[in-house]
Amino acid sequence: MKTQLQRIKRDIEELAKCNDTPNLGLTRFSFSQADRKAREYLKAEMKAIGLKVYEDDAATIIGRIEGTEKNAPVVMVGSHFDSVKHGGNFDGPAGVIAALETARVIKENNIKTKHPIEIIAMIEEEGGRFGAGLFGSRAMAGKVTKDQLINNKDENGIAMYEAMQEFGFDPEKIAQAQRNPKDLKCFIELHIEQGPVLEKNKQDIGIIDYIVGIHEFKVIVRGRPDHAGTTPMDMRANPLDAAARVIGRISEFAVNAGEGTVATVGVLQVMPGAANIVPKEVTFTVDIRSKSTECINKVYRDIQEALKKETQGSEANYEIVEMLQVEPVKLSQDIINSIQKNCKKLGFSERTMLSGAGHDAMIMAGITEVGLVFVPSKDGRSHCPEEWTDYADLQKGVEIVLQTVLDMSVTVKD
Amino acid sequence: MKTQLQRIKRDIEELAKCNDTPNLGLTRFSFSQADRKAREYLKAEMKAIGLKVYEDDAATIIGRIEGTEKNAPVVMVGSHFDSVKHGGNFDGPAGVIAALETARVIKENNIKTKHPIEIIAMIEEEGGRFGAGLFGSRAMAGKVTKDQLINNKDENGIAMYEAMQEFGFDPEKIAQAQRNPKDLKCFIELHIEQGPVLEKNKQDIGIIDYIVGIHEFKVIVRGRPDHAGTTPMDMRANPLDAAARVIGRISEFAVNAGEGTVATVGVLQVMPGAANIVPKEVTFTVDIRSKSTECINKVYRDIQEALKKETQGSEANYEIVEMLQVEPVKLSQDIINSIQKNCKKLGFSERTMLSGAGHDAMIMAGITEVGLVFVPSKDGRSHCPEEWTDYADLQKGVEIVLQTVLDMSVTVKD
Repeated sequence: MKTQLQRIKRDIEELAKCNDTPNLGLTRFSFSQADRKAREYLKAEMKAIGLKVYEDDAATIIGRIEGTEKNAPVVMVGSHFDSVKHGGNFDGPAGVIAALETARVIKENNIKTKHPIEIIAMIEEEGGRFGAGLFGSRAMAGKVTKDQLINNKDENGIAMYEAMQEFGFDPEKIAQAQRNPKDLKCFIELHIEQGPVLEKNKQDIGIIDYIVGIHEFKVIVRGRPDHAGTTPMDMRANPLDAAARVIGRISEFAVNAGEGTVATVGVLQVMPGAANIVPKEVTFTVDIRSKSTECINKVYRDIQEALKKETQGSEANYEIVEMLQVEPVKLSQDIINSIQKNCKKLGFSERTMLSGAGHDAMIMAGITEVGLVFVPSKDGRSHCPEEWTDYADLQKGVEIVLQTVLDMSVTVKD
Repeated sequence: MKTQLQRIKRDIEELAKCNDTPNLGLTRFSFSQADRKAREYLKAEMKAIGLKVYEDDAATIIGRIEGTEKNAPVVMVGSHFDSVKHGGNFDGPAGVIAALETARVIKENNIKTKHPIEIIAMIEEEGGRFGAGLFGSRAMAGKVTKDQLINNKDENGIAMYEAMQEFGFDPEKIAQAQRNPKDLKCFIELHIEQGPVLEKNKQDIGIIDYIVGIHEFKVIVRGRPDHAGTTPMDMRANPLDAAARVIGRISEFAVNAGEGTVATVGVLQVMPGAANIVPKEVTFTVDIRSKSTECINKVYRDIQEALKKETQGSEANYEIVEMLQVEPVKLSQDIINSIQKNCKKLGFSERTMLSGAGHDAMIMAGITEVGLVFVPSKDGRSHCPEEWTDYADLQKGVEIVLQTVLDMSVTVKD
């Protein structure tokens, strides 16, 4: 008989073997050989537990435990098991394993609940192969169309439609993956933090109250390319001068906006890009995230004003090209209360925090109540082979998920 | 009989036809078909004038007029006739034509001078084909070795050594291109400004007192790549934050240094370069130019201090990699005086100014007295098909070169 810690370790390690790039981090793209292996492992484990196992029309694995009350809405618990290219073993699988272990404990202890429970293991959350991402949850929310399956292609030009078919699923049936919100009670997801906050603060559990909204845009500043030696400083229209002054203030704008708002310039390109030519054009991206749309808008306005100020009276000018706008999502207060109560009961330290990244939970919040639990990430690292969560930390998250699932599904005394 | 303006126009237009990329700007790389054609044109014109024409061992065309005094040092006048890729018709040829026209006027008017005069037409000044640049003048200064000819290769891997040989020159003799400083009186070059100053100030002639010194270096700022959503602002080590704040102040540093000092960031690369990842590493180049080494050093120190300040107390750090250091060159005060006097005599407006770019004159200043004359560049453009100098403006420069060559070579009354 294995301890729970041993079982968690075994699950992580067995899934880690389902990898198309051994020794180069975990690459488990959707509908790949690695997907097939991980899928077989998860289905076998779910069956061993005694779950009713099936796959929906978006290739999501579902292991179901019936409730005692007929037609009661279902408590879903899970995450995704695909990965980015050369990623780690925890982003996704940690949440799938938490759900699996929750089911094991419930079945082992013969616990009965009023609401049915579904263990959920989704794919293509990362969009690693086909680009779109959050696939399993979007399919449940009825947001994946056949056209998308035809148009989303991998780097070899293989459409998702074709890949699904070859893998043994019928893309024509994708609409059938949609779940009726009436049939759902909630969706609970455990995920690694992918950031440094829990580790830095030595806390066990992150309780997510908001998944941040995102405003991503591109700024193009245009000037005039001049010879770096022959053009006096006062005769230049240097777009990098203006851009640098604005970029140098974006951190300050984010901090001033408050509410944990973050803003990042991750891409910056300078044209033509020669040491002895004053740049002609500078392009940079800005990614603003906050639980508050107002804070996002404030940073956006501050950046616009700074751009205006820095290009005013010069020949340089700027343009903003929109890339992505996602509204913040408030998660279920009931589930937050339950998680908090359970942390207290189990003696785990916790903090209420934002999720700065998307996750399937964000999409599921469109159709049901959602709870999201974070466990610490070593050095805040993620999407790389060094991604790591101590098994003991993960076990604490599993305990919280179990207790919260039991709260939500309503344990029935014998 | 053509007017001087017509002759200048014809020279420019005939040389412009010696082009390996017609309709895509002028591309006249060294030892190319275009070089051959231009070379034949220039040699034929020199011979028509009655010059003694030969080529030195660096393929520089020299057209000589003997002086009346035996063994008097020579007054050289000229420039280069190679071009960058897809460049213009004036950078280089303007100075070669000024020399050619000077010789025409001298010969037509049967003017005798004490000192011999040499019309100089050099190649590979741009380094467009083999990278190194300033080839003809460096060869005269004895600074080109056989090893350099072997190691400098074009983008097809053809060594300069091989290309010279195929073109009909003997690379083994390169050292023989060196001129003895004792045999030289001075080198006078006309060049287009390649900047906006003369045009903006509606001035005819630029009289160069200094060719700027250059300090070019690369700054690498290193931080930590973090997820743009999950890493709070106060837990980041963002190298672009620091770099942007420094870059945004470099113009100010240059202006504060005075003496027309300029500083430019022309290359900036951000790694890994994804919109949702806080940059890990930022690399940028800085090119500082000034007539004063002290001013260059002041800007360099200001940048270092700013880098120190902006990375202090954060996990980000920086490194400076040296690329190029060239000392400023003071040009001949005698020749400056002569040019000023001649501008006054001819009623041309002039300004004393810096040369922000190199030119063969810079190298020649190592072995003889040097004068450099600028004529206006339309919109300050250069190294592009739009490069243009009005023929009437060029003619004024030719007049100045002629008068200054006559001053320096000392006209002998009949």
